Amino acid sequence: MRNSFGQAVTVTLFGESHGAAVGAVLDGMAPGLAVDETFIAGRMALRRAAGQISTARQEEDRVRLLSGVYRGHTTGTPITFLIENQNTRSSDYEATAALARPGHADFTAREKYHGYADPRGGGHFSGRLTAGLVAAGALCLSALSGRGIAVGTHVARCAGIDDRPFAEDPRDEIAALSDRAFAVLDRAAGERMQQAILAAKAEGDSVGGVLETAVTGLPAGVGEPWFDTLEGVLAHALFSVPAVKGVEFGDGFALADLRGSVANDPFRMRAGQVVCESNRAGGILGGISTGMPLRIRTAVKPTPSIYKEQRTVDLDRRSDATLTVKGRHDPAVVHRARAVVDAVTALCLCDLLAQRFGTDWLAGKEAVCSTD
Amino acid sequence: MRNSFGQAVTVTLFGESHGAAVGAVLDGMAPGLAVDETFIAGRMALRRAAGQISTARQEEDRVRLLSGVYRGHTTGTPITFLIENQNTRSSDYEATAALARPGHADFTAREKYHGYADPRGGGHFSGRLTAGLVAAGALCLSALSGRGIAVGTHVARCAGIDDRPFAEDPRDEIAALSDRAFAVLDRAAGERMQQAILAAKAEGDSVGGVLETAVTGLPAGVGEPWFDTLEGVLAHALFSVPAVKGVEFGDGFALADLRGSVANDPFRMRAGQVVCESNRAGGILGGISTGMPLRIRTAVKPTPSIYKEQRTVDLDRRSDATLTVKGRHDPAVVHRARAVVDAVTALCLCDLLAQRFGTDWLAGKEAVCSTD
Amino acid sequence: MRNSFGQAVTVTLFGESHGAAVGAVLDGMAPGLAVDETFIAGRMALRRAAGQISTARQEEDRVRLLSGVYRGHTTGTPITFLIENQNTRSSDYEATAALARPGHADFTAREKYHGYADPRGGGHFSGRLTAGLVAAGALCLSALSGRGIAVGTHVARCAGIDDRPFAEDPRDEIAALSDRAFAVLDRAAGERMQQAILAAKAEGDSVGGVLETAVTGLPAGVGEPWFDTLEGVLAHALFSVPAVKGVEFGDGFALADLRGSVANDPFRMRAGQVVCESNRAGGILGGISTGMPLRIRTAVKPTPSIYKEQRTVDLDRRSDATLTVKGRHDPAVVHRARAVVDAVTALCLCDLLAQRFGTDWLAGKEAVCSTD
Amino acid sequence: MRNSFGQAVTVTLFGESHGAAVGAVLDGMAPGLAVDETFIAGRMALRRAAGQISTARQEEDRVRLLSGVYRGHTTGTPITFLIENQNTRSSDYEATAALARPGHADFTAREKYHGYADPRGGGHFSGRLTAGLVAAGALCLSALSGRGIAVGTHVARCAGIDDRPFAEDPRDEIAALSDRAFAVLDRAAGERMQQAILAAKAEGDSVGGVLETAVTGLPAGVGEPWFDTLEGVLAHALFSVPAVKGVEFGDGFALADLRGSVANDPFRMRAGQVVCESNRAGGILGGISTGMPLRIRTAVKPTPSIYKEQRTVDLDRRSDATLTVKGRHDPAVVHRARAVVDAVTALCLCDLLAQRFGTDWLAGKEAVCSTD
Repeated sequence: MRNSFGQAVTVTLFGESHGAAVGAVLDGMAPGLAVDETFIAGRMALRRAAGQISTARQEEDRVRLLSGVYRGHTTGTPITFLIENQNTRSSDYEATAALARPGHADFTAREKYHGYADPRGGGHFSGRLTAGLVAAGALCLSALSGRGIAVGTHVARCAGIDDRPFAEDPRDEIAALSDRAFAVLDRAAGERMQQAILAAKAEGDSVGGVLETAVTGLPAGVGEPWFDTLEGVLAHALFSVPAVKGVEFGDGFALADLRGSVANDPFRMRAGQVVCESNRAGGILGGISTGMPLRIRTAVKPTPSIYKEQRTVDLDRRSDATLTVKGRHDPAVVHRARAVVDAVTALCLCDLLAQRFGTDWLAGKEAVCSTD
Repeated sequence: MRNSFGQAVTVTLFGESHGAAVGAVLDGMAPGLAVDETFIAGRMALRRAAGQISTARQEEDRVRLLSGVYRGHTTGTPITFLIENQNTRSSDYEATAALARPGHADFTAREKYHGYADPRGGGHFSGRLTAGLVAAGALCLSALSGRGIAVGTHVARCAGIDDRPFAEDPRDEIAALSDRAFAVLDRAAGERMQQAILAAKAEGDSVGGVLETAVTGLPAGVGEPWFDTLEGVLAHALFSVPAVKGVEFGDGFALADLRGSVANDPFRMRAGQVVCESNRAGGILGGISTGMPLRIRTAVKPTPSIYKEQRTVDLDRRSDATLTVKGRHDPAVVHRARAVVDAVTALCLCDLLAQRFGTDWLAGKEAVCSTD
Repeated sequence: MRNSFGQAVTVTLFGESHGAAVGAVLDGMAPGLAVDETFIAGRMALRRAAGQISTARQEEDRVRLLSGVYRGHTTGTPITFLIENQNTRSSDYEATAALARPGHADFTAREKYHGYADPRGGGHFSGRLTAGLVAAGALCLSALSGRGIAVGTHVARCAGIDDRPFAEDPRDEIAALSDRAFAVLDRAAGERMQQAILAAKAEGDSVGGVLETAVTGLPAGVGEPWFDTLEGVLAHALFSVPAVKGVEFGDGFALADLRGSVANDPFRMRAGQVVCESNRAGGILGGISTGMPLRIRTAVKPTPSIYKEQRTVDLDRRSDATLTVKGRHDPAVVHRARAVVDAVTALCLCDLLAQRFGTDWLAGKEAVCSTD
Repeated sequence: MRNSFGQAVTVTLFGESHGAAVGAVLDGMAPGLAVDETFIAGRMALRRAAGQISTARQEEDRVRLLSGVYRGHTTGTPITFLIENQNTRSSDYEATAALARPGHADFTAREKYHGYADPRGGGHFSGRLTAGLVAAGALCLSALSGRGIAVGTHVARCAGIDDRPFAEDPRDEIAALSDRAFAVLDRAAGERMQQAILAAKAEGDSVGGVLETAVTGLPAGVGEPWFDTLEGVLAHALFSVPAVKGVEFGDGFALADLRGSVANDPFRMRAGQVVCESNRAGGILGGISTGMPLRIRTAVKPTPSIYKEQRTVDLDRRSDATLTVKGRHDPAVVHRARAVVDAVTALCLCDLLAQRFGTDWLAGKEAVCSTD
């Protein structure tokens, strides 16, 4: 399956940047979950471009719930999130439509779709598609929250500037992040990052960064030993977030340089629970959750749309060419990608939990056991 | 689905480290592919423990082809690879079976399987299960080779020592790696790595590393814009390789620190083909292959089985405890994981190519067009 | 996956009878297929209620193509078909909303969704959801037609009255059926069926029937020996058509009474092609197409919504009750189901063909081989 | 996926009739289920050929459990059932290997696999593959039994002779069938059927029949409204049973001739439970279980291997030919197919229940709630 993900809880994405609409169908969510449209709108706002550091294309991103919600609750049937496109300026793309923008999917789309893909604003490849993901993910975040599971992401690094990492117990930090437009733990670092973004913008250039995600409250025992490992499922989905080129769990690549005696997290009993004294494994052993917080880091490349002149080729005639990109673009997307990473993480966890504990578990224990 | 992966070409893993056998069922491979048992045995040898730097458990790893092969060719029906276990010494595990080995899946397996999992030698979680993957992957490597696609992996880093990276055009290096037991491009670096492994072993400790994989000859246009991105599918499978904690494509995490003007690979015409002047994207844009070589880096944590005393808990009574691991273990697995990474990469590519071009494409163009 | 079907070509259904809209997302269709909105509207008209023999709820069923179509062709990305609901009269359902309508899904929906499902007009279970199927199926029918594959269905039996069966070569009959609102081969039989439907309606009752489907031009070699047999995949999807309670292929249940010497279809050479002298197998042997026409029969139960008083229970208090259904209902659906059966059959075939020959095959041979 | 079925509980079939072995991998079964090898052997015996009415090829069909079982219980990891082939006489097939046996898959296999399929004894298409299904299904039947769910099948019709149908409450009849080699409810009818089989055999011919299956104890609320309807999932799998050409639920095709007022099953309260007064729907409404017994009928065509001379074609040269089948074949398979239908039904139900209630539900309520 192409534009769908998940087994028990499934999301299907559709739409084009300058088409009629973008959206998502979320299927398999338990019936009876309260649907908080204000919360969904809040998540959309976190994803939305805003201020000097983002694109001048400003969309209201109103989410219309076309199906699967009745009297404020999920029905258990597919939930359709529709976001109509409004602020499109396709003319920006006409001058350069025949050229392959470096770092973009124009060339690979041509190879795959033989010239039939909608090229306006990146079409189906546009980061705008993540609006549907964020809307669907908002519902997943709510559902997880109802079971005591929290997900949060901050900009751990941007333009070479580091935020401080999540604390060993990141619950308060996750809560604090939930309404920060530019999500950092250290606000001073965040200021410096935004200055760096503006500096790049001033040069017609762009910057990248790294997102750190934490999940608390996830029960132990979720994930599979082979293929559907917790890492594998999350990474699969995270690489759908545009511009992501690396994913690591726990200490990730840094583990490669450690010795086993340092890398292994010792187990200890604490208040009747098994915990790890350190969490270099990022809450996952053998592909399965340990009950410790998940720790995930995601590398986001710099926005490929820059205003500097670039060397490229002509898609049709396949001759060398020179390109100067027009249109309205972000000098950085890492801070916006944060809402998408939260959404994708929540989608994966809802799916794995529904597989593990059944379709109704997210709606509470009673629902599960009433059938027994 | 749990222990299966793939859509058009699927692999299912089964077995336990000290059970009767391990193996794999590979389904969806085109009919008419020549099956070279010597080549399969060679790939098994690359995965197998050997010499001072590996575990003392030495298995012959003879692969029995139970189904799906007739007169030396694939039939198009499921191919079963069976590897019987021989050199098992389960008594090594009895003394410590009640304790959760740090860095291992003992604790998460208990949470997931409620104490019913086979604990001997790690049971179904054992790296021994990768024997089935390597056998199935060998057939995939052969099939890809028949279509001009080459896959190769080297130990890019081990115990803090770097091998040199793949060249821009890695075809010769891939060919040279194919029969190297300790796969490095710079043999001197390889010697230093092996010394470091032995040094760790002498201290009852272990080391990790990073693998770099390259793929040449992959056509442009393979992969999907959302979810089944080329990165997502490969990463999903690579995180099944035991001990892998990070995956990156092209310049990966390093891209996060670059500006767009540096990160974007310029396109150029060369001999009538569109190529990229640099390959920081690792051969993938918008989730789809560009036709440039794939470049993948995989972080492998140090082997969790060390001989030093470790703090842990008792699985049954859940009290604190002290563990000294027995059994026969590897002071490093990164050099053995290399054959598994090749296998997993080949499996993913066969699957994606069969989805793109149909079930018979891997067996050659004629087969495809005879139906037309 | 719940409300989705297919592997290479996938359809996802969403919506509720009295909600904002119903629709479908069709993914995996080859890029470059011409999209004929007039043809889609025509298929919608065949499904739509019309005249005395159908429900008084008349919907315009205008299909809005929200995504995946650009300049009149498929782009290769997900195609969203949206049909907004207009003529809803939910008040009809209020009086009886607390009662389980016999033969309907009210009771099973309550057991599954714990009372959260939208009950208005059957909600997500409504036959209205098939509007999305028919819209998506229309595109599939067009695509198949482009490769010389024709699909047609007629009312083979209704209220005990038989139409004549398809001829051995049903190509002309399929063509003739394409614009018949009440699809029969023998118009006189069709008149008698419609009289019988009106007679049942006059008594506040309903009737059922049997649909016969034929497919011509399907290449031999499509389908799998186990599980994804051509019969299994088609039956899986056909049982989604509301009210379907039986599916048979070729002579189906009648084969059970034959001897092998009669049941076996002899093979013969004709004009260089292998054909079957008879076609009792319905074009399928070993789960795989023979190249002969497919022959499928589908049993449709009488509409459960009747106006006679019925014995039932109260959904909430679970006491016995008496129900007299209100609302606007069909005295028969078999003639409308015909368009749905065509759609579902076309969806399955597009999926299986894309699996077999690759994603671009439906768009023509050139597309496939350009990648080679 | 080709030779696999199921989402939460999955079965993968492999092997060829005259290859080394046939078998199955069953994945996703709850850990902690007792594995009763005697029961498995008993189910194998029901499937096995026996006596005058079956093939002269007699296989011991010893099932080797290669993985996934430890100390008599399921581990929760993949369970491999291996049945080695012993009594093969491939020479029987050599004389006629170049001809397409009518009613068999020889011709379609050639079209699909281009001549590479193992032709001996039907290869991968052989009914012998069902040995793996029956072994895996035996474990599923045990698991269902532990949750109070019983599955049973009898020969409802054979060679035109009817057995009596299941009673409204078929629990005792299911129990009585469990060890009957020729499964009928009316032994006298069974005798007549067996005489008819022998009569056909004496003429070198074969007969077919119809199987009726009942399931009791299935909770209400299992199945999906679209696509993964209970009927759709069961039919999908049942059409994998070789020779099956029709599947109907409840009154099936007979419902097409009824009026709604007769076809609708009235609901009533009985002992605090909602029941249906009749069960024409076969325990399924809107694709979802009602809690009433499931009733399924499956049409099995006569064995295609007959000893009479038949008209056919030469697979290689594609000329007309005359075939007289050799080898050892069954004059009827319907009585043997009964064990396969039970197995397939049990596999589907385990899968749907695990999807609905989570992976551990089949092993008992405690396991589920321990995680809460």
